[in-house]
Amino acid sequence: MATLETFPNPAPNGRRYTITHINPEFTSMCPKTGLPDFGTMTLEYIPDKTCVELKSLKYYYLDFRNKGIFYEAVTNQILDDLVELCDPLEMTVTAEWGPRGGISSVIVASYTKG
Amino acid sequence: MATLETFPNPAPNGRRYTITHINPEFTSMCPKTGLPDFGTMTLEYIPDKTCVELKSLKYYYLDFRNKGIFYEAVTNQILDDLVELCDPLEMTVTAEWGPRGGISSVIVASYTKG
Amino acid sequence: MATLETFPNPAPNGRRYTITHINPEFTSMCPKTGLPDFGTMTLEYIPDKTCVELKSLKYYYLDFRNKGIFYEAVTNQILDDLVELCDPLEMTVTAEWGPRGGISSVIVASYTKG
Amino acid sequence: MATLETFPNPAPNGRRYTITHINPEFTSMCPKTGLPDFGTMTLEYIPDKTCVELKSLKYYYLDFRNKGIFYEAVTNQILDDLVELCDPLEMTVTAEWGPRGGISSVIVASYTKG
Amino acid sequence: MATLETFPNPAPNGRRYTITHINPEFTSMCPKTGLPDFGTMTLEYIPDKTCVELKSLKYYYLDFRNKGIFYEAVTNQILDDLVELCDPLEMTVTAEWGPRGGISSVIVASYTKG
Amino acid sequence: MATLETFPNPAPNGRRYTITHINPEFTSMCPKTGLPDFGTMTLEYIPDKTCVELKSLKYYYLDFRNKGIFYEAVTNQILDDLVELCDPLEMTVTAEWGPRGGISSVIVASYTKG
Amino acid sequence: MATLETFPNPAPNGRRYTITHINPEFTSMCPKTGLPDFGTMTLEYIPDKTCVELKSLKYYYLDFRNKGIFYEAVTNQILDDLVELCDPLEMTVTAEWGPRGGISSVIVASYTKG
Amino acid sequence: MATLETFPNPAPNGRRYTITHINPEFTSMCPKTGLPDFGTMTLEYIPDKTCVELKSLKYYYLDFRNKGIFYEAVTNQILDDLVELCDPLEMTVTAEWGPRGGISSVIVASYTKG
Amino acid sequence: MATLETFPNPAPNGRRYTITHINPEFTSMCPKTGLPDFGTMTLEYIPDKTCVELKSLKYYYLDFRNKGIFYEAVTNQILDDLVELCDPLEMTVTAEWGPRGGISSVIVASYTKG
Amino acid sequence: MATLETFPNPAPNGRRYTITHINPEFTSMCPKTGLPDFGTMTLEYIPDKTCVELKSLKYYYLDFRNKGIFYEAVTNQILDDLVELCDPLEMTVTAEWGPRGGISSVIVASYTKG
Repeated sequence: MATLETFPNPAPNGRRYTITHINPEFTSMCPKTGLPDFGTMTLEYIPDKTCVELKSLKYYYLDFRNKGIFYEAVTNQILDDLVELCDPLEMTVTAEWGPRGGISSVIVASYTKG
Repeated sequence: MATLETFPNPAPNGRRYTITHINPEFTSMCPKTGLPDFGTMTLEYIPDKTCVELKSLKYYYLDFRNKGIFYEAVTNQILDDLVELCDPLEMTVTAEWGPRGGISSVIVASYTKG
Repeated sequence: MATLETFPNPAPNGRRYTITHINPEFTSMCPKTGLPDFGTMTLEYIPDKTCVELKSLKYYYLDFRNKGIFYEAVTNQILDDLVELCDPLEMTVTAEWGPRGGISSVIVASYTKG
Repeated sequence: MATLETFPNPAPNGRRYTITHINPEFTSMCPKTGLPDFGTMTLEYIPDKTCVELKSLKYYYLDFRNKGIFYEAVTNQILDDLVELCDPLEMTVTAEWGPRGGISSVIVASYTKG
Repeated sequence: MATLETFPNPAPNGRRYTITHINPEFTSMCPKTGLPDFGTMTLEYIPDKTCVELKSLKYYYLDFRNKGIFYEAVTNQILDDLVELCDPLEMTVTAEWGPRGGISSVIVASYTKG
Repeated sequence: MATLETFPNPAPNGRRYTITHINPEFTSMCPKTGLPDFGTMTLEYIPDKTCVELKSLKYYYLDFRNKGIFYEAVTNQILDDLVELCDPLEMTVTAEWGPRGGISSVIVASYTKG
Repeated sequence: MATLETFPNPAPNGRRYTITHINPEFTSMCPKTGLPDFGTMTLEYIPDKTCVELKSLKYYYLDFRNKGIFYEAVTNQILDDLVELCDPLEMTVTAEWGPRGGISSVIVASYTKG
Repeated sequence: MATLETFPNPAPNGRRYTITHINPEFTSMCPKTGLPDFGTMTLEYIPDKTCVELKSLKYYYLDFRNKGIFYEAVTNQILDDLVELCDPLEMTVTAEWGPRGGISSVIVASYTKG
Repeated sequence: MATLETFPNPAPNGRRYTITHINPEFTSMCPKTGLPDFGTMTLEYIPDKTCVELKSLKYYYLDFRNKGIFYEAVTNQILDDLVELCDPLEMTVTAEWGPRGGISSVIVASYTKG
Repeated sequence: MATLETFPNPAPNGRRYTITHINPEFTSMCPKTGLPDFGTMTLEYIPDKTCVELKSLKYYYLDFRNKGIFYEAVTNQILDDLVELCDPLEMTVTAEWGPRGGISSVIVASYTKG
């Protein structure tokens, strides 16, 4: 299992600013059919004390490659994991999935501190 | 007649998040001329207790293939059916229709709980 | 002269929803030069009791084909005619005109009931 | 069953020129699954004595709406039917299908006279 | 009726070069239904002794505004008129028509000097 | 010097609506280097009693063709000139400039009446 | 290991026509780093006696998901496997890979019978 | 080290307006790997008394060419430097970075005057 | 009048290769109306002994800014001037002009040595 | 100085196929002004016995980062270096440069064996 890492937020104290990481190469498996799902996973957050280290984020995403998990569940789990990791002021995870049976799907989950 | 199905919302209690399903292959019939209409049907909602199961949604849409129904009516009916199905916090149905007589049309209907 | 027609709003009582008709093939004449103008005429409205019938709308637009009228005037007249026709809750007419003398123009006029 | 119609080629004797009709709203059924296929059907030909009448072509395409037929077969059948109809100098049918199981398909079949 | 005009080819003797005029605002009428057709008319030619004067070309196109004529016929007529006007080395007329009954059409007719 | 002209607002009394004129062929000179600048000049306004006449606007813009003036200054001057001309309810001038030294620039200046 | 399947070519004897299957969701592993590669795998061929069955092609592609293999090798292997499978008149495999170290790659390999 | 320069704001006293400079050719180095990063650096601000001189901005950006600095740090430093330089009413720096390990990143930092 | 300059072709003896310079900011004047024309001027050539120096090309183009000259004439003149300047193996000048009276134009003139 | 590396061509003996590597993040310096140039460097080749190793290609490109060299020279040098490295059957280097003084440039140089 990959270990997510953080580094201290380099911005001046109290500045709210936004960091976005866009991964167009996310893939997991459908738990029902065993077939792979492909999508773009976008993480957008306002850091508080720490930021998500980019390389560890890449490896974290790789852990889903052969994992069976539904669209709605994976989006919420990533949000939960990353909120727990870096305790951000705000965070949004957007998963945009390629068409299955002709239908494309987008799941957007957000968190706001306190 | 296809049966729409639901599954329990996997998100943590009380998290408001958005699910969107985009179907660029929707087709129904014009009740006046008997000619087919083609469009993109987009369903966007904030689930409460349950989510719409994707495969059953596909079959539900197929039921309109040979049904005569006007643009405005089909959009409202889909909204009514899906609100009744999964009792969401918010839901929007957007139907974007290809040109007829040179004119394209878009119908957007929304529901907010309580 | 074409006669605009309406049909009863099929949505449940009191639901506010939006209908948009996009006509990329609108043409009228410049009253000064007699040269044709070409544009995209977009009608967006929230119906109250009645909706605009699409085929009659097409014929209504055709009446402008050989009529001399300025950009600003035609946009406002279409808004006035259609508001009078179907008494909507809200209505917007957007006219996007191709370049004349290198300059493209867009006119947007709106109406809100009561 | 719709009847395809032709009209006499209006071009001067012996001029080779190209006519293309693009139908982005073609649909047929998969004979295996009973699920609909959606695609763009493009007909391109050099007429000899007669041309394909456009409205009858539209109705001819509609006959495939509820017919079970594979990608490769429908493309070849449309080419055969239209070659037989209007005896063109050259003709190409291109069928571009939306994704199934994540894979989009294109079939291109051509005919050259004599 | 507008009069097409020419001007002497300004290029050095014997240079073959190409002139293209693209008119995205062409409109004529369907002789069957009386409804307008809209398209992009592209003229491409290699001049010999004379070139087509641009403003007179614009007025020539305007003559089709209220004329009933089929897709195939108008394309061939424009080619015939312009070949007769300026006796080019080569000329191609391409007419790209907006969708009617969901089907878009393109007609391409060419001429090569003797 | 070109004279800007106006015409009376043809809309019903008190209707707020928006007029936009987009000129992708604006050019002036850099006062420092004498080199030309190229950009798109967009004028958007809500008229009060009068509207800007389009042809006179074109000639007004032409006056900048050989004038040395900085990005920020020309945008503000056009806004000042046009506000003075037609006393609008609101007006915005947007100047989008092509790359110089690899850097593109956009200047947006707005006015709201009293 | 998935078994590729074929079905008899439904076209009239001797007609050369082209079948293309585009898979934008191909993924394999880099044998050096163990990191996944993502790309679009396009198969284009002129069938002789048999065609590639689409569903079995999907499963064949899935076999590469966790296989370590270089860009150039996987493209050539897929061409070899599919030529052996259905003995086509012509076949081309195109692999378009997403950026690695800022550099995107495309590999195109072709086969012609006899 | 390049010296950032300013010039007096040419707008009338008290007018709030927006200046944007877009640099699609920004590059710095990753402090960890020594590999270059490439991105688009966008500066948007509402000037108070002074504006940023464009040429000096170009040279300021060039100073980062061989400097090792992380995504988040460089964005915040540019904002700090430019706020200090011209004391704007508002300022936003947006850095959009090309893909690294398949993941693209965007950092947006803003400042509003006391 | 700007002086076009050349520099020695740096390629190995006898290598044919192509150099293209694209200027989307070309402007000249219509000799009839005095109004400016705007276009993209593209120069593509295979050098022999010398190449066109880029900065001198920019100044050469600037000389047309206030010169009255027709579309066809300016394209041919630029080709003649540049062929005379650097005696290339092949050269093509493409002028793409913005719409006038709704019609866009493209002029392409070529030269081949010997 | 980075060392370019090769690996043995994995394709069956005698198969001609094409490998393309696209680097949108190439940068070098103008030897005259010392300012950086930015472009997309595309390498396309048909390998004979060996292929270019991708990672070593990336480092090879990095060597140009702070090197003063003209557009035409760098393109030809890269072609010469890579031909010498892997002795391909055919090779093309395409350099597409961002605008300088408003003018974008493209240089294309090719090599064919024997």
